[in-house]
Amino acid sequence: MIEVEVKVRANLEEVEEQLLKLGAHFGGEFYEEDLYFNSPFRDFSLSDEALRIRFQEKKGLFAYKGPKLDPISKSREEIEVEVSDPSKLRGILLKLGFKEAGWVKKRRKKFELDSFRVFLDEVEGLGGFVEIETKAEGPYEELLQKALELLEKLGLKGELIRESYLELLLKKG
Amino acid sequence: MIEVEVKVRANLEEVEEQLLKLGAHFGGEFYEEDLYFNSPFRDFSLSDEALRIRFQEKKGLFAYKGPKLDPISKSREEIEVEVSDPSKLRGILLKLGFKEAGWVKKRRKKFELDSFRVFLDEVEGLGGFVEIETKAEGPYEELLQKALELLEKLGLKGELIRESYLELLLKKG
Repeated sequence: MIEVEVKVRANLEEVEEQLLKLGAHFGGEFYEEDLYFNSPFRDFSLSDEALRIRFQEKKGLFAYKGPKLDPISKSREEIEVEVSDPSKLRGILLKLGFKEAGWVKKRRKKFELDSFRVFLDEVEGLGGFVEIETKAEGPYEELLQKALELLEKLGLKGELIRESYLELLLKKG
Repeated sequence: MIEVEVKVRANLEEVEEQLLKLGAHFGGEFYEEDLYFNSPFRDFSLSDEALRIRFQEKKGLFAYKGPKLDPISKSREEIEVEVSDPSKLRGILLKLGFKEAGWVKKRRKKFELDSFRVFLDEVEGLGGFVEIETKAEGPYEELLQKALELLEKLGLKGELIRESYLELLLKKG
């Protein structure tokens, strides 16, 4: 499964107003705590991969993300599975030699518009971002083009950001 | 969590009869398909660790088992977590560089007696085995002693087997 994704910095209040004008459906507000890991035998910051446990109230989500597929967007292969107990999974990864790379904590509002999910993220330590996402089984260029058009419709003309929140946080120090 | 465990080869019909005489509670019969993995940066057959996905009908179990803790039994640290989709977890492990070491398939009858779980395993390609298991938070010597006594009560006087089913299958070739 390919996750097609673009991301920009944004004033979240303005974008939310614009989303509602365009008829987007509000899908809920979440507080997410993500723990990222690095591999003991290849540096994910060089191989452009990511391994993440999302801690939720009663369960967790375990995700692997492959290298980004084009020089513009954040589109990449993603495999995600639900786990009953994220703390136990963290224990398994540490036993296997994986190293904790850092936490990303954010308050996220989710909207749905056409075939896209639009996330308004208030990231602790970084500020406001908009992510536009969809899934593709095969070629995704057309979907990426539509995601870029949606950015424009939302009045978002800032530079596309390809770095992850973790990378931005680590760069900030 | 320590998994305290002893294992012997056995005639399963005889053991089942003996278990019922001792008042054991029958806990169900299951067909289990376990896929074991090896690590790309340390050989689990040397480090005496194990990483396993158990494929069940609608979910999976992901387990890490540490090195055995004594020269007699199979007691070892175990961390286990439930996953929504074992095939996706398999995909993540392969992406991370883990290698499939082999499948173990068995029909398992579960019994409970005192604080022990007794498993009667008919392992494909290997035959009948009895495993006596319990969990311990700290020192486990006393529990191990009781497990050995239970083996005796069940008339099981064969040699204790410390090799895993996977090791026995790989040795058999």
